[in-house]
Amino acid sequence: MRTHYCGEVNASHVDQIVTLCGWNHRRRDHGGVIFIDLRDREGLAQVVCDPDRPEMFKVAEDVRNEYVLKVTGKVRRRPAGTENSNLASGEIEILCHELEVLNAAVTPPFQLDEENLSENVRLTHRVIDLRRPQMQKNLMLRYKVAMAFRRFLDEKGFIDIETPMLTKSTPEGARDYLVPSRVHPGQFFALPQSPQLFKQLLMVAGYDRYYQITKCFRDEDLRADRQPEFTQVDIETSFLTEEQITALMEEMIRSVFKTALAVDLPNPFPRITHAEAMRRYGSDKPDLRVTLELTEVTDAVTDVAFKVFSGPATSGGRVAALRVPGGAALTRGEIDGYTEFVKIYGARGLAYIKVNDASKLNEEGLQSPIVKNLHEAALKTIVERTGAQSGDLIFFGADKTKIVNDALGALRTKLGHEKGYVDGSAWRPLWVVDFPMFEYDEENKRWSACHHPFTSPKDGHEALMATDPGACLAKAYDLALNGWEMGGGSVRIHRSEVQERVFQALGIGPEEQQAKFGFLLDALKYGAPPHGGLAFGLDRIVTMMAGAESIRDVIAFPKTQRAQCLLTDAPSDVDEKQLRELHIRLRQKVETQVEVGKG
Amino acid sequence: MRTHYCGEVNASHVDQIVTLCGWNHRRRDHGGVIFIDLRDREGLAQVVCDPDRPEMFKVAEDVRNEYVLKVTGKVRRRPAGTENSNLASGEIEILCHELEVLNAAVTPPFQLDEENLSENVRLTHRVIDLRRPQMQKNLMLRYKVAMAFRRFLDEKGFIDIETPMLTKSTPEGARDYLVPSRVHPGQFFALPQSPQLFKQLLMVAGYDRYYQITKCFRDEDLRADRQPEFTQVDIETSFLTEEQITALMEEMIRSVFKTALAVDLPNPFPRITHAEAMRRYGSDKPDLRVTLELTEVTDAVTDVAFKVFSGPATSGGRVAALRVPGGAALTRGEIDGYTEFVKIYGARGLAYIKVNDASKLNEEGLQSPIVKNLHEAALKTIVERTGAQSGDLIFFGADKTKIVNDALGALRTKLGHEKGYVDGSAWRPLWVVDFPMFEYDEENKRWSACHHPFTSPKDGHEALMATDPGACLAKAYDLALNGWEMGGGSVRIHRSEVQERVFQALGIGPEEQQAKFGFLLDALKYGAPPHGGLAFGLDRIVTMMAGAESIRDVIAFPKTQRAQCLLTDAPSDVDEKQLRELHIRLRQKVETQVEVGKG
Repeated sequence: MRTHYCGEVNASHVDQIVTLCGWNHRRRDHGGVIFIDLRDREGLAQVVCDPDRPEMFKVAEDVRNEYVLKVTGKVRRRPAGTENSNLASGEIEILCHELEVLNAAVTPPFQLDEENLSENVRLTHRVIDLRRPQMQKNLMLRYKVAMAFRRFLDEKGFIDIETPMLTKSTPEGARDYLVPSRVHPGQFFALPQSPQLFKQLLMVAGYDRYYQITKCFRDEDLRADRQPEFTQVDIETSFLTEEQITALMEEMIRSVFKTALAVDLPNPFPRITHAEAMRRYGSDKPDLRVTLELTEVTDAVTDVAFKVFSGPATSGGRVAALRVPGGAALTRGEIDGYTEFVKIYGARGLAYIKVNDASKLNEEGLQSPIVKNLHEAALKTIVERTGAQSGDLIFFGADKTKIVNDALGALRTKLGHEKGYVDGSAWRPLWVVDFPMFEYDEENKRWSACHHPFTSPKDGHEALMATDPGACLAKAYDLALNGWEMGGGSVRIHRSEVQERVFQALGIGPEEQQAKFGFLLDALKYGAPPHGGLAFGLDRIVTMMAGAESIRDVIAFPKTQRAQCLLTDAPSDVDEKQLRELHIRLRQKVETQVEVGKG
Repeated sequence: MRTHYCGEVNASHVDQIVTLCGWNHRRRDHGGVIFIDLRDREGLAQVVCDPDRPEMFKVAEDVRNEYVLKVTGKVRRRPAGTENSNLASGEIEILCHELEVLNAAVTPPFQLDEENLSENVRLTHRVIDLRRPQMQKNLMLRYKVAMAFRRFLDEKGFIDIETPMLTKSTPEGARDYLVPSRVHPGQFFALPQSPQLFKQLLMVAGYDRYYQITKCFRDEDLRADRQPEFTQVDIETSFLTEEQITALMEEMIRSVFKTALAVDLPNPFPRITHAEAMRRYGSDKPDLRVTLELTEVTDAVTDVAFKVFSGPATSGGRVAALRVPGGAALTRGEIDGYTEFVKIYGARGLAYIKVNDASKLNEEGLQSPIVKNLHEAALKTIVERTGAQSGDLIFFGADKTKIVNDALGALRTKLGHEKGYVDGSAWRPLWVVDFPMFEYDEENKRWSACHHPFTSPKDGHEALMATDPGACLAKAYDLALNGWEMGGGSVRIHRSEVQERVFQALGIGPEEQQAKFGFLLDALKYGAPPHGGLAFGLDRIVTMMAGAESIRDVIAFPKTQRAQCLLTDAPSDVDEKQLRELHIRLRQKVETQVEVGKG
């Protein structure tokens, strides 16, 4: 129907007759002439409707916002001084010869340039919201990124193999979404939390290099950056070492950033161990743009009078310092604010020392109620290790290690960005490697897998699985970027006896192993190659790239944080007949259900 | 770990040291030397283990089938006369210097070259089955085809936009797979039967050209070519006419066949109306390779004595003939076989005339018990219209139109292939256009949508929706290939008032419209562009291309015809706790369940 996209017509088309289709973005009447900004996916074009074509002009007079139009006209230069350099088509306009209304539109619930719309309004009227140029840019970027992944992986010999959506429930990980079976009464499929086991089976079957950009599902309570269904760039390869896998993956990420954003990421990406990341940043996905670092002082405060420090220091906890250069200038109110902030992470308070004079290791040089309860050796170590100078401020975390890391790690990032402790580089990727195999689950009093139970222990660490699980490290690696986890993976276990020992360490006995993972253990016996891989969170990567506030801004039809689609009103009630066919019934009576339903 | 894929080493590598990784496909001991056929994704390479390297040789002696090996050695030409021209690596062999067993393997449940395995065995041990070269070729082809679609669509400005997997149940179409909501007690998501409405909403939102290669779900009883989850190449575009859409789509299919199979499909594809397809082939997806055609004789037999013909001919049914050139040579047994065959389609019998002498319109020239009950005018019309010659046979179908079409349509294809009534061309695509808008649902005594309720009536046919729904044609088109439906689509309704009239014709009143499709009707009011699209069945296309017997042979992890995954044993029982969280309970008692479960 058209000859060009609106946003593509430019000075090279002057004097040509073009036909455009699009939406009336804005209509202005000026000096007896009607100007229509016609909008399509590629941008805007200015259409001039002159009253000397009365039939066409009459149509133009009735055009309202968001009418769908077909315009045929002659491209001409805009009069000097009326060019719009913000538009690709800003040098030209189309003198309208014919104008057809392809469809009328009622007044939209909001204007496309309206700001500060509530997310509920945006998601309810998602079709209008998706017309906004920012959303169009975001979804185009998402496509560009996905295709950049595909192109790179294709060139490297990876092939996309689809794995099932209707699969088996394995309740170890997050909560499954279940799908009742009609053919097998009382039984259920689960939607996949990831294609993990299937991609490992594909390696055992000899496919060598696999990828898939696929939906995964977790029925968890939603945080800002989570969705019930999310998209994973899922990758697995055989016969490569951990170093070869991470090298290939960072080459891919560099290629994707170059293609999608024309950004050159560092080569190679820096690499630190998980232990070092926790020690220096209190986080396994540190934001390297922030220049602040944590300093270990646990060993220096074991015997101080200040119980808040010596307590954790002598009972397996951690005491760490965060030096803020020039931080003595922070106001009381700011410090109070940060003290409140760290409480989110379980910290009971936020001790600090103002360094008035770094050369005086006493209450004169170091201003803080805690100084009198720290002996001089401790103060000396603190000042020396942090490198504190006069005019600095030192925050402290002292508690169980996890709380200290979470609290000071988060404070580091927040304070760093708020107070400008950041270096210039916009993108700071980082490999975090040598994750622990296991973490202790206090609630259930047992070890659980840090990454997942299919991750290989580091060479030489196999025996630790039985003797000291907490000290056993894994061939697991995460890629962090600016404080976000972009992706993570591991070298997998390819010998069934090692897999069985890991299950054992996790408290999964032989019978349960066979019932739940028998097909994996079998596969590992039939000639499994060494293999490993990674999964990247596509939603999150695009959110970062787009500078969006929420992953919901890079998903066409997202769910709310209450896991609803406001546009189509899903989930919804279904017919009793459907439930009967699926051999299930509702637990609540209908009356109760109305009360607790979404109303 | 390796320098090359096994299948890639060739004469150009002679004298080079290479490292290969793969599986021991076959080991032979010959004249004190061990030969290992090492297999990977790309093929086989012959490895020669010579006893003059005793340490390596000792390892080789212990190698069993499907062991995973790493081989380093020197490439050399095979001795003259021992080349294998079936292999890319058939001119060379690798003289083994080092051999490492990366993983051992127990004896597999079957040999990779074993034939006539039951599908149950193959699906239970799918990992081994997927190692078979044919399965590897099929999945590689599938990837190649999918990428060919992506590349074409990318070049044409289509963008891949993901639509939700957790969506709203609309029980009009096939049966939905349901997913209970934990957060909203008593409510359910449905897995999408297709992204139909979302892609239309994307057009209304201005995305102009959309595609997605995505999973769709239908909980139906499974036929040979159906799976509970299947993959659709889903496409939608704005501002194009039906002719422009089909032209673009056939360009795409030509491009995909060229890329994946190096096959040139005709340009353009032939096109016939649905009415003509039914008249000439009794099918809306005729196999054009078969040269036989149906002939309409309904009007010629309204007044014959033979009630089997005159009955249907005078009560809205159909009487059609299928001329089989030279068919007088069919044996009695063959004709009996075809008579049984058409009963599958509801036919009560299969009348026929043997044409002994086409010039004699009587029981001498035309041999059949029915001839005496057909008057001469009828016989004349039959012989003339079918073009029957002496030595031919004419089959007849006489019944309700649907039964005649189904029975003779199927007979045409079966007999055509069995008896060689086919022309030489391997690929015969065909557009079937102008489908009816509605078909009458005898069971529920109402009209239902032939394609789907969002399909636009043909221009000028709008009024027929209310006055004569059966005569109303749609802007709907299918692409048939060799008797399979490859894909289908339509121009959609882009005006809410037309959409409301279609719903009305389908017996969906205003209130139900608003409850189920309010978001669509709203969207159509906010400035919907003319739009339309298509969906192709990827599984089916690849099955055809691969010449596979079942779509299960082009899916890595398919379900059985009882909708089970034999590999992972899904669906399966779940914990009571999971059901409680989802606010559902099983309908059966546990005892009953064990009995009816899959055992």
